[in-house]
Amino acid sequence: MYNALLLPDLREMLDTDDAESLKAVSAELHPATVADFSEGLSVEETWKLLSYAPFERQAEIFSFFPFDKQIEMVDGVGRDRMSKLLEAMSPDDRVDLLKRLDPEVAESLIPLVTRAERQDIRTLLSFPEGSAGSVMTTEYATLPEDVAVGDAVTLLRQQAPSRETIYSIYVLDEARHLLGFVSLRDLILAKATARVADLMHREVISVRADEDQEEAARELAKYDFLALPVVNDQNQLVGIITHDDVIDVMIEEATEDAQKMGGVMPITEDYLEASFLTVWRKRAGWLSCLFVAELFTFTAFSHFDDAIHQVIALAFFVPLCISTGGNSGSQAATLITRAIALGQVSLADWWRVLRHEITMGLVLGLTLGLIGFARAALTPASVLENANRWVMALVIAQSVAAICLWGTLVGSMLPLVFKRLGFDPGYASSPFVATFVDVTGIVIYFSIAKAFLL
Amino acid sequence: MYNALLLPDLREMLDTDDAESLKAVSAELHPATVADFSEGLSVEETWKLLSYAPFERQAEIFSFFPFDKQIEMVDGVGRDRMSKLLEAMSPDDRVDLLKRLDPEVAESLIPLVTRAERQDIRTLLSFPEGSAGSVMTTEYATLPEDVAVGDAVTLLRQQAPSRETIYSIYVLDEARHLLGFVSLRDLILAKATARVADLMHREVISVRADEDQEEAARELAKYDFLALPVVNDQNQLVGIITHDDVIDVMIEEATEDAQKMGGVMPITEDYLEASFLTVWRKRAGWLSCLFVAELFTFTAFSHFDDAIHQVIALAFFVPLCISTGGNSGSQAATLITRAIALGQVSLADWWRVLRHEITMGLVLGLTLGLIGFARAALTPASVLENANRWVMALVIAQSVAAICLWGTLVGSMLPLVFKRLGFDPGYASSPFVATFVDVTGIVIYFSIAKAFLL
Repeated sequence: MYNALLLPDLREMLDTDDAESLKAVSAELHPATVADFSEGLSVEETWKLLSYAPFERQAEIFSFFPFDKQIEMVDGVGRDRMSKLLEAMSPDDRVDLLKRLDPEVAESLIPLVTRAERQDIRTLLSFPEGSAGSVMTTEYATLPEDVAVGDAVTLLRQQAPSRETIYSIYVLDEARHLLGFVSLRDLILAKATARVADLMHREVISVRADEDQEEAARELAKYDFLALPVVNDQNQLVGIITHDDVIDVMIEEATEDAQKMGGVMPITEDYLEASFLTVWRKRAGWLSCLFVAELFTFTAFSHFDDAIHQVIALAFFVPLCISTGGNSGSQAATLITRAIALGQVSLADWWRVLRHEITMGLVLGLTLGLIGFARAALTPASVLENANRWVMALVIAQSVAAICLWGTLVGSMLPLVFKRLGFDPGYASSPFVATFVDVTGIVIYFSIAKAFLL
Repeated sequence: MYNALLLPDLREMLDTDDAESLKAVSAELHPATVADFSEGLSVEETWKLLSYAPFERQAEIFSFFPFDKQIEMVDGVGRDRMSKLLEAMSPDDRVDLLKRLDPEVAESLIPLVTRAERQDIRTLLSFPEGSAGSVMTTEYATLPEDVAVGDAVTLLRQQAPSRETIYSIYVLDEARHLLGFVSLRDLILAKATARVADLMHREVISVRADEDQEEAARELAKYDFLALPVVNDQNQLVGIITHDDVIDVMIEEATEDAQKMGGVMPITEDYLEASFLTVWRKRAGWLSCLFVAELFTFTAFSHFDDAIHQVIALAFFVPLCISTGGNSGSQAATLITRAIALGQVSLADWWRVLRHEITMGLVLGLTLGLIGFARAALTPASVLENANRWVMALVIAQSVAAICLWGTLVGSMLPLVFKRLGFDPGYASSPFVATFVDVTGIVIYFSIAKAFLL
């Protein structure tokens, strides 16, 4: 959402080469604000605007562009200028960009970056998508344990310009093993003569680089940390994940979870920007699978055509009965999936969950069954034809109650089963559960109907 | 999820009054870890454990307890001790607790707190739930603009012990108007003789205390801030919202959104801890509404009983047709609701969204229509009875395509309509859309069937 009001002003500054104003805009506003303002500019105009800012600043602003724009910007400029900018970008932001570029373009840029940065890029690129290593940055502040606080602050002052944060400082031995953690606040409050070793917290909470990024987000959120250290198998520090990266991970995961619940494969692009074909593929894929699964409702339904031939009114209640299962199933699946994501429920709790949901399903089924009974009892005689009103009402009440219980049980257990099998419990969500319960609900309904009516 | 292994050790320490070990546990571990470990302890045991920690530390550990435990702890201790602990707690945490306590208990505690803290509590309690003011803290670090950096650091050192963060510092005039912002990193890097006024950023991004907490979360996330200043109508600083509070807000909102999508009224309690009656009410409420709405499927279906009498096989395709509408509607609703939440789509975009979804709905409808055609064409003659196979296949294909388009349009527009009417777009989510499309889908299907078959 860019500020359309400022765009003409910005254009005029660019057209008249108003260096002073352009410098002010690009250097004094927050980089995110500059990125917003330049959303309406062409690639050439944006590069021109950037050229008025100091180099580090250009990299900061660039990192706030949406990825689509970043990619267009790369295509619209010489490789030399781009490789310089890459060097100035923070390690996590530049790896995010390189991953999204055409591999050929990325491979043509990497050799132009200085050797040290190149190595850093290769390391970060090697972590699989979704791991803690893939979202960490390698620009962290460190201290040895045997320095005095006064010297420590001097050391930090030297590190500060190139570090993502100097507020969380990690204490390492010579082999880069993580020994402890100290905050800048601790250092500021301590006497200048105190030693880092005396101040540091030795109980350091960290994640391994190959752990899930969600696990890292959970740990940081739990301890209210500014940054979380990332270590390798030997407990050597390899990076940090900062609070702002965790927020990004959380937004991304919330979007993915919502999309899984809504029956879409994850679409990471902005809704209005995403390519039609990509979105069609991701939507049609899931919809077609569900549709094919729903075809079994036809098979199940037509299997009972003798029942329909005898009591046509039975057919009219089918959508009501199966939607009850779908809704109660979605509800249970949502609660359990979310409780798993929040760490409130683990696999070991399956029996507690099942017990809880059996009672809940029975009570919910009773509630809906009563409403169903009342409605069925009010069916006009012309619709009922040869069927007995009260028997019909009883069949509906029992079917609704049974299917509601069934939906609740399937909805609550399926996410746990998925997790046990190593799948994402999010996929056992509304549409999947609803489809499954639709088909089985028809069988339950007609079995009850046949037992009582025919 | 507490560490069950440590519980027996902890119990033994408490039973034997092992002061040294208890001091070590309560003072040296991270407060969140101590809170975890004491999850299995009784209220008395927990108070005993806390008593071995320094006072500030007790308050920190207490804040990491789940709210249920906090409330039990309040009930299990004298008002004097509790009021002392309240004084030591950070303003936002203690207001969160007071809001959840029985109002009588809260009112009996507040008078025991010192006058200054009491005023602070009353102010924070006055902000409505969900506003920026309700999640902010009043313990922020400030500086006047005319001090030198050297003196500024000394001032901060004095403020540090009682401030939530000293990394984001706000520059105020004498009337507490927000003039600018400076980070501790800026101060550390500057010469001791530089003045705060020269260093500070004058473009300060802030929120008003009465704005939505989600808006505050979005701003902090957008700018990667550690903390966001909260001001009143006169641009006077009244509090700050820190990164960890924003993460809590985001988790809360994600849970609420998921629950709305899954057809549950928001349940904030832990899944396994929540009271059965509360959960039943919240689940049964939504389910009953949806069930009552679904009753219209019966009305719609039975309205077409003449069609069923002529071609019974028509009934067998009803679940398939309506579930197609439900699934495509849920999918569109999810995408649009999420895009609204992320700020990618606003009301003004409704025409772009509609145009996009018309094309998408047509293409998706065509995809599913083809599958439906194939399936209907394969129907056994015994099931079809008197109906023509190819006409039947054509009816199914057209109905599926039309209902898919209809579901997509309803699903994409309803969240925008809800937003326009001032409702939360999240409520126009899967179950609501699916139910609406179920009923209308039956009408679409039979209208097409009657036109071709009868």
